[in-house]
Amino acid sequence: KQRHHINNGVLSRLYSSEVPQFETLAITVPKKHVFHVELNRPKQLNSITTLMWKELKDCFESLNDNSECRVILLSARGKHFTAGIDFNSLMQDSSKAEEYEDVARKAKILEKLITHCQDGITSLERCNKPILAVVHSACVGAGVDLITAADVRYCTKDAWFQVKEVDVGLAADVGTLQRLPKVVGNTSTVRELCFTARKFDSQEASELGLVSRVYSDQESAIKNVLETAVTIASKSPVAVQNTKKSLVYSQSRPNEVGLEHIKLINQAMLQSEDLKKAAIAQATKSTTEYENL
Amino acid sequence: KQRHHINNGVLSRLYSSEVPQFETLAITVPKKHVFHVELNRPKQLNSITTLMWKELKDCFESLNDNSECRVILLSARGKHFTAGIDFNSLMQDSSKAEEYEDVARKAKILEKLITHCQDGITSLERCNKPILAVVHSACVGAGVDLITAADVRYCTKDAWFQVKEVDVGLAADVGTLQRLPKVVGNTSTVRELCFTARKFDSQEASELGLVSRVYSDQESAIKNVLETAVTIASKSPVAVQNTKKSLVYSQSRPNEVGLEHIKLINQAMLQSEDLKKAAIAQATKSTTEYENL
Amino acid sequence: KQRHHINNGVLSRLYSSEVPQFETLAITVPKKHVFHVELNRPKQLNSITTLMWKELKDCFESLNDNSECRVILLSARGKHFTAGIDFNSLMQDSSKAEEYEDVARKAKILEKLITHCQDGITSLERCNKPILAVVHSACVGAGVDLITAADVRYCTKDAWFQVKEVDVGLAADVGTLQRLPKVVGNTSTVRELCFTARKFDSQEASELGLVSRVYSDQESAIKNVLETAVTIASKSPVAVQNTKKSLVYSQSRPNEVGLEHIKLINQAMLQSEDLKKAAIAQATKSTTEYENL
Amino acid sequence: KQRHHINNGVLSRLYSSEVPQFETLAITVPKKHVFHVELNRPKQLNSITTLMWKELKDCFESLNDNSECRVILLSARGKHFTAGIDFNSLMQDSSKAEEYEDVARKAKILEKLITHCQDGITSLERCNKPILAVVHSACVGAGVDLITAADVRYCTKDAWFQVKEVDVGLAADVGTLQRLPKVVGNTSTVRELCFTARKFDSQEASELGLVSRVYSDQESAIKNVLETAVTIASKSPVAVQNTKKSLVYSQSRPNEVGLEHIKLINQAMLQSEDLKKAAIAQATKSTTEYENL
Amino acid sequence: KQRHHINNGVLSRLYSSEVPQFETLAITVPKKHVFHVELNRPKQLNSITTLMWKELKDCFESLNDNSECRVILLSARGKHFTAGIDFNSLMQDSSKAEEYEDVARKAKILEKLITHCQDGITSLERCNKPILAVVHSACVGAGVDLITAADVRYCTKDAWFQVKEVDVGLAADVGTLQRLPKVVGNTSTVRELCFTARKFDSQEASELGLVSRVYSDQESAIKNVLETAVTIASKSPVAVQNTKKSLVYSQSRPNEVGLEHIKLINQAMLQSEDLKKAAIAQATKSTTEYENL
Amino acid sequence: KQRHHINNGVLSRLYSSEVPQFETLAITVPKKHVFHVELNRPKQLNSITTLMWKELKDCFESLNDNSECRVILLSARGKHFTAGIDFNSLMQDSSKAEEYEDVARKAKILEKLITHCQDGITSLERCNKPILAVVHSACVGAGVDLITAADVRYCTKDAWFQVKEVDVGLAADVGTLQRLPKVVGNTSTVRELCFTARKFDSQEASELGLVSRVYSDQESAIKNVLETAVTIASKSPVAVQNTKKSLVYSQSRPNEVGLEHIKLINQAMLQSEDLKKAAIAQATKSTTEYENL
Repeated sequence: KQRHHINNGVLSRLYSSEVPQFETLAITVPKKHVFHVELNRPKQLNSITTLMWKELKDCFESLNDNSECRVILLSARGKHFTAGIDFNSLMQDSSKAEEYEDVARKAKILEKLITHCQDGITSLERCNKPILAVVHSACVGAGVDLITAADVRYCTKDAWFQVKEVDVGLAADVGTLQRLPKVVGNTSTVRELCFTARKFDSQEASELGLVSRVYSDQESAIKNVLETAVTIASKSPVAVQNTKKSLVYSQSRPNEVGLEHIKLINQAMLQSEDLKKAAIAQATKSTTEYENL
Repeated sequence: KQRHHINNGVLSRLYSSEVPQFETLAITVPKKHVFHVELNRPKQLNSITTLMWKELKDCFESLNDNSECRVILLSARGKHFTAGIDFNSLMQDSSKAEEYEDVARKAKILEKLITHCQDGITSLERCNKPILAVVHSACVGAGVDLITAADVRYCTKDAWFQVKEVDVGLAADVGTLQRLPKVVGNTSTVRELCFTARKFDSQEASELGLVSRVYSDQESAIKNVLETAVTIASKSPVAVQNTKKSLVYSQSRPNEVGLEHIKLINQAMLQSEDLKKAAIAQATKSTTEYENL
Repeated sequence: KQRHHINNGVLSRLYSSEVPQFETLAITVPKKHVFHVELNRPKQLNSITTLMWKELKDCFESLNDNSECRVILLSARGKHFTAGIDFNSLMQDSSKAEEYEDVARKAKILEKLITHCQDGITSLERCNKPILAVVHSACVGAGVDLITAADVRYCTKDAWFQVKEVDVGLAADVGTLQRLPKVVGNTSTVRELCFTARKFDSQEASELGLVSRVYSDQESAIKNVLETAVTIASKSPVAVQNTKKSLVYSQSRPNEVGLEHIKLINQAMLQSEDLKKAAIAQATKSTTEYENL
Repeated sequence: KQRHHINNGVLSRLYSSEVPQFETLAITVPKKHVFHVELNRPKQLNSITTLMWKELKDCFESLNDNSECRVILLSARGKHFTAGIDFNSLMQDSSKAEEYEDVARKAKILEKLITHCQDGITSLERCNKPILAVVHSACVGAGVDLITAADVRYCTKDAWFQVKEVDVGLAADVGTLQRLPKVVGNTSTVRELCFTARKFDSQEASELGLVSRVYSDQESAIKNVLETAVTIASKSPVAVQNTKKSLVYSQSRPNEVGLEHIKLINQAMLQSEDLKKAAIAQATKSTTEYENL
Repeated sequence: KQRHHINNGVLSRLYSSEVPQFETLAITVPKKHVFHVELNRPKQLNSITTLMWKELKDCFESLNDNSECRVILLSARGKHFTAGIDFNSLMQDSSKAEEYEDVARKAKILEKLITHCQDGITSLERCNKPILAVVHSACVGAGVDLITAADVRYCTKDAWFQVKEVDVGLAADVGTLQRLPKVVGNTSTVRELCFTARKFDSQEASELGLVSRVYSDQESAIKNVLETAVTIASKSPVAVQNTKKSLVYSQSRPNEVGLEHIKLINQAMLQSEDLKKAAIAQATKSTTEYENL
Repeated sequence: KQRHHINNGVLSRLYSSEVPQFETLAITVPKKHVFHVELNRPKQLNSITTLMWKELKDCFESLNDNSECRVILLSARGKHFTAGIDFNSLMQDSSKAEEYEDVARKAKILEKLITHCQDGITSLERCNKPILAVVHSACVGAGVDLITAADVRYCTKDAWFQVKEVDVGLAADVGTLQRLPKVVGNTSTVRELCFTARKFDSQEASELGLVSRVYSDQESAIKNVLETAVTIASKSPVAVQNTKKSLVYSQSRPNEVGLEHIKLINQAMLQSEDLKKAAIAQATKSTTEYENL
């Protein structure tokens, strides 16, 4: 019954020789080509520290380059997905700005700080491997920023969400205000959520379209999503990764701009051997193995 | 049983010393920091005249500057929300174009007229205070343009909507074609509605995501939405108003563009006292009062 | 019980003197101003060949110019809507690239080929007449690209859909990755569909918002959608066609850009006689006939 | 020898019945359809006050609407073109921000103030009538912002220029940094000028392309530029004003965007009588009178 | 002394087996890979008719596809480069719009007409082969639109130019207002030229940067420019054509957008054999022959 | 006669305690707040290796953060400015791509490589401190990419330039095609230079506007430019750095976009103490010292 059987490190290592190690994130490889990233500060409710922002960036940049990795499962260890930003850590960072009296000098420090956090989250979007997020229990503040930068979202029945930033006196600045309306596709309720900071549960998240499916508990969620991940991992990585690249780029750009972009990509990619392998597999109704990318 | 108890002018004045006065709009202040704007030509079904376009602009520009105002409730007095544009008024305006024979000279008049109407509606979007619209009964033509420029929409059970412009021989030019698809997030049914001008009721509006909730009648709708408004008014105005600014700006722009925008804003705003106040309130689980903005 | 009574060529000809003829598409005119375009390679499951890409472009460009045509119904003859791209045809085209060894020379051939296919589909979006698609049974791969470029989508209960491109080793490059997320308005499930290539049925398509309504069978679907088409055809073509132009242009562009665009259009179009005709018709509660456009 | 003979108010009035009056600007009409706007605070070196920003906006908005006005000459009375922003006035405005301690509340005041100034200058660009600027002697700080928003620039031999903002501790925020590089077309020297705030004379301005011609003195400059203005005023106002509209819009936008824009404009404007008049005039080598626009 | 020795058809044919034939354009191949396009309606001063717009489009699309063509010389036969648009032809085309009374219906005709002309000129920009224009004597109206869509411009000493559109009652709508300011890089004099329609000679054109060099006469111009063309034709066509593609695309787009574009292109193109050939040629200081593209 | 007296390391160290050290770049601090970056592979003609790309990025990122640095002088040690990209280094990097057969896998390697090089050069543009480049002798290929990303360019009389990329079989992909036309403002000659790869000397560079001034030799160039640098270093760093930020951002963006950007910046920056210091200095005609930024 213990979920950690699934992403047990020893087992994982069987599936990959290059698993990056982090302090705040646990990386395992439960299935071939499927990397599992877990927020791993359970005792601190997975609250996000300066270090975790940095490790998120390092992690997803490294997985982007890691040719063994084809799809990523993102979840969290412990009781909650994440309580959001870690206030102690934030206070420490902001205190650098306090050293200055002058607004312009403070602003420079703060701009760097915001960039640091934004980069942590944007790294999910820039990573060309699909990221499937599985949320359980609390997903608060920066947690919402984080999951809206993933590709597909699932949650457990006990999951709840909160765009909490206005409650701590600021406009969200690491992605929720940009991504949540695009992910959900409806702005009326989204804006209500952003202005009121009210909590909403898994059912509302599902109706809203924030998550694609609700599972009874984390174990079954991960089990099922892992199957989806395995399916994706079995496809041509050339096909899958350029699909993500094109989806991300084409969002909020006129169709002709997105079409030009994929045309430039595919004038090279249609020369890949993956097409031929796929064609043969389709024709012979067999499966095929694609080289890493 | 009379709804006007809620936004009774005498009472309202207690909550604000600066309430702008208009001929076609009634402004009251039912709760501290909550301004209530009502379309106020009930005998003419709140049809929108040249004067009302102008007053809408003046009203929302003035509320944007009004530091006592933190959130706005938008509804209408009388039997219907609005019958849309007032044809007598439009005819009078267009008659100026009739004075000219030449297409180019007519075009100049018409361009000014369209600008005048567009500005009335765009003023809702440019106003940094959240606008919660409550629609009852008929919301036709320009009424749909108007509410899609608000932030959150609610309606009564008897509400019905109609993108009527094609029925009067023109493509909608004051916002519906731009905002309705983005607000709703789905284009198939939206386009059907725009091409056919068929009426749709509160249930379809709710399923479509045009409104966030349907209430039994206007009184209960306003009572409930007022509570939401009070909640928003209790938050840091720095947080709330920059949240709206960022949401509006980031729509239809690539994420990196929206992220850069909020970064520039927050390099200043994170220096505001509201953060500290909020932090203390959160830490001490108490409430706090924020200065006006 | 045979659907072809509806769009029987002989009958159709009564309604229009200018019906373009194609090899892979059947064009009829079941009602005044309503053109019906049917994919017409039923024995090959309406798979899309080089010729069909070209004919799609020619067809929708020609209907755009055809002033008798005001609205277009798009469906398919035979057992399935379409099996997607025709592999034999694709292989033949790609073989031109095989003549070259050099990546750059191959790329030039492939770029032209992608352009050829993209143009076939983008022609639906560029055609100013509303296009109502009716899908039945299989709609696979390029079929999804095709219908997302239509304006409104309906389907039969037995319809099923598949974003199949990753299965054949490539990222979709003729429109699905650009248009599907915008059409549906929700990215979580859309991305899952694009990464996994899993099939989804009419119910999921409806919940997702890909289609506006599900009908029991093709005959009733076409019968009903034809009524919608007739309604649209009865409206001012100036109003309807500029409505489409503005909807298409305003998507993925900031609201102020879309508003400027429709203002430039309407400074001319508000001088059209259609407004006066519509005004009289509305005032006298009569119907009116609009000139072709 | 006194230049004021040229734009003597009494004389001017002969050429127009609608000349707006301002405190800080003198408006005359030296030739039919040619309006002359002069900065008119000679004793204060035409330094720009809060009132002048407002009057600039009102002036150019009013001339844009004034159908008798077809071209505008912009120069200054007194010894210098302008010393730039008026510091006393600026201090008074900024002092409103000083009333607040909080950075966010100050920022709101400052944002409004910058908007106020930007609007004064942007009004030149938004005015569809060509603006010919004639600079003499000092043109400092906000003066450079102002003239780069005009269409064509001329100067006298004794003219000198200075992008002075860095000397007063701020980055220019009312247009120089946006418009100067585009007007001049070369960024190397432009950036040097912006970073060093060094003065440059009429010869360097001419070589740089900031001005189109250098005249010996203000009288001869205005006399000559007036002739150019008269030439422009004799052309079709439909042609000239849409030329400016298209030039302004197409700058910094891809060519296809600018081409689409002028196409939308000209689908109406090519229906104007001005084309026929011009065609006859060209064919008969005669002159023609165009109606006002 | 006769220039036609240079591009004598018989000789040309030696250099290419695929030379498209046109009525209004003469195409020859004076040197290997160098195609010479000449405006060829000398008796009508090379005025541009409906047919010529079409043939310009067909010509440059065909040369874009023609792998023997690597660089294009554009000049004109007869006494003048071009007198601009042909009025008789334009009148005939516009007369189709005259058949309609209604502004909207006329607008549709005119929009198509403008598109037709714009496409003729934009085809130069879309053609990936460098186009070197050699202007002699008059280059009026549409002639300026035409040459600004070329890549490099040269002229003879007797050349003169005129942005004539305002003289015929319209704002230029086929490219001058978009391209001239970008080509020249300076807007002050450009706007003067556009508003006044005054003629300017080769010297002013040279100082303005419209042309890169002025030659004494057409013969020497073509002789010299042909040498430049031969130089370009000797380079890798992969390098040259993607250089043009990137230059055209990057204009008026932020640098990061242009850099992303060339990165997508070069991830394929750096795999071309041309790099290796060039590397060897450079290393061995020899010349190399590149395959056609 | 030895130039190294000027930027002698020992002397430099007096002016700053934080001077980053690099292998391929020499950093000194010849004057207070003025950092001097020199390409430092004189024996290899300063050809740019993988390491140098990386160090360029690290250098300019570090100087951007270094609050003692206010302005940067960029020049090169040895006989030439730079011979461009180092072919041995490039070959080594590209050989990684050679390990793969498949086009898609090669493309991934190449994309990373191009990104690596682009980042080296874009770091100059992203660094908010003004960069003054002094070119002597050869500036070839990637050297042109590099200097066009600087802010102001100067050169010696013996300097010569070459956009050499087409000669090595590729379209330039690290900035020249994006930045050179914008820096120079004229595209005719620029395109000729890019297509032919012909060398051009200091005089043509000056006429073209690529450089702002030509000096007799490197010593006098550096001496003079150092004076300009000292001037810039004496200004408010808040003013200077936001001036660069706004200039860079506003290029190739419509004016209203650039104006909105600087407004967001200055709502914070106008609260800086630098304005008051500057105001007092101006009023008292004294100099002032600004805090580091």
